[in-house]
Amino acid sequence: MADNGSVEEFLATAVDAAKKAGEIIRQGFYQTKHVEHKGLVDLVTETDKACEDLVFNHLKQRYPSHKFIGEETTAACGMSELTDEPTWIVDPLDGTTNFVHGFPFVCVSIGLTIGKVPTVGVVYNPIMNELFTGVLGKGAFLNGTPIRVSSQAELVKSLLATEAGTKRDKLTVDATTNRINNLLFKVRSLRMSGSCALNLCGIACGRLDLFYELGYGGPWDVAAGVLIVKEAGGLVYDPFGKDFDITAPQVAASNPILKDAFVEALQQSE
Amino acid sequence: MADNGSVEEFLATAVDAAKKAGEIIRQGFYQTKHVEHKGLVDLVTETDKACEDLVFNHLKQRYPSHKFIGEETTAACGMSELTDEPTWIVDPLDGTTNFVHGFPFVCVSIGLTIGKVPTVGVVYNPIMNELFTGVLGKGAFLNGTPIRVSSQAELVKSLLATEAGTKRDKLTVDATTNRINNLLFKVRSLRMSGSCALNLCGIACGRLDLFYELGYGGPWDVAAGVLIVKEAGGLVYDPFGKDFDITAPQVAASNPILKDAFVEALQQSE
Repeated sequence: MADNGSVEEFLATAVDAAKKAGEIIRQGFYQTKHVEHKGLVDLVTETDKACEDLVFNHLKQRYPSHKFIGEETTAACGMSELTDEPTWIVDPLDGTTNFVHGFPFVCVSIGLTIGKVPTVGVVYNPIMNELFTGVLGKGAFLNGTPIRVSSQAELVKSLLATEAGTKRDKLTVDATTNRINNLLFKVRSLRMSGSCALNLCGIACGRLDLFYELGYGGPWDVAAGVLIVKEAGGLVYDPFGKDFDITAPQVAASNPILKDAFVEALQQSE
Repeated sequence: MADNGSVEEFLATAVDAAKKAGEIIRQGFYQTKHVEHKGLVDLVTETDKACEDLVFNHLKQRYPSHKFIGEETTAACGMSELTDEPTWIVDPLDGTTNFVHGFPFVCVSIGLTIGKVPTVGVVYNPIMNELFTGVLGKGAFLNGTPIRVSSQAELVKSLLATEAGTKRDKLTVDATTNRINNLLFKVRSLRMSGSCALNLCGIACGRLDLFYELGYGGPWDVAAGVLIVKEAGGLVYDPFGKDFDITAPQVAASNPILKDAFVEALQQSE
């Protein structure tokens, strides 16, 4: 019975779905320059919706008893509670602002939890043609090649990624730039790519040493990336040292060596 | 006589040189993960030096009477004055920190000024295989396809790029994050990619709407990008409204519609 497939089958099915959704994203990505503003809003919404429908239909056909959590569905119907059932958590288009502007950090993110444990993760950037995958206990891969987190041991030599977020009230913006101010004295440099899932994959393949984000959209932004980081030898944790909660909108990631110093630096930056 | 070649010949020669240097960068890029720290320092220096030698030799062989300004040569011999002679201004490896960490925004930048006017520009990212080119009066191209700046008319819908810079004294870092704080209330979001030349090319192809950088390395970071932006219909200017000077380490760029509002926002952020 398909619902009891192996994790390798789950992975293969998720990769299929991600590649097909990626094709829709790619087509829209190269159209955004040529549509009027109203049409652009529609294009984004339609691409988001079409990708989520495609991924959900693809997975539901094979695994009808599984549960599904998606950004679009949640926006329409409210958040479903994460249970112990096999649950697919999908962000059909991460990096919406990048998609609108044609900045090449966009992706589809598909994660599967079983017993609430992230078990399969797929993040696909169809513009740069980078497919990140991970399966619990079986390692993480970029286009089929094993990846590892960086071996960086010093904050001062570390490349940090974060995001400016979407909230523009004074309290949030001041806290955001104060945090960056404090951290700039402690790390080598700062990158902002505009995609939470791709930042996590950047940690997994060692392009980035440190990542934190506060106030992202929901568990769909991290469900796949968290597993990919862990399977690449990294850690995903609460930025301020609390227990990590996949449903809380704050996340940090790095290799194990940097974790304590990074959490300390983040705590000092509050 | 080769020295009197057409600008199209100059462009073709520069593209040849950029592709060959790109091959050296690509090889080094995928090695950085596997060398010890001391070896890494050597690899960066060697790649930088090998690319500059390759580009200069390639151009000097064809245009022996032309002048040359390069980051590596300047570091060793001091800055050559920019004259009216045809002068090639080369950054053999822009995005050194990205190169070290394996973050895919790295490029070689080759610009030619004649009578101090930027006349040919080539920026090649060998990891993403993106070749940006421009010739004075003949347009700008990405992999041979014409590119245009964005048509964005509102700051609040604009995607801004800047960099954290390399200085870590309190005065500079505070000014950097204060500026970002002020601007975040006025634009849609912020990207930091780590390459000045690629940020200019991002403006040229409309991926980014606004870019400013203060305190970059030298004219080699902007010589090619400035022309590519202009030929794509954009403007390159001093961030605070003074006359733009290619030898001053501060630059801003956008489409013509956004310029006044952007300069005003930058002035207000000081």
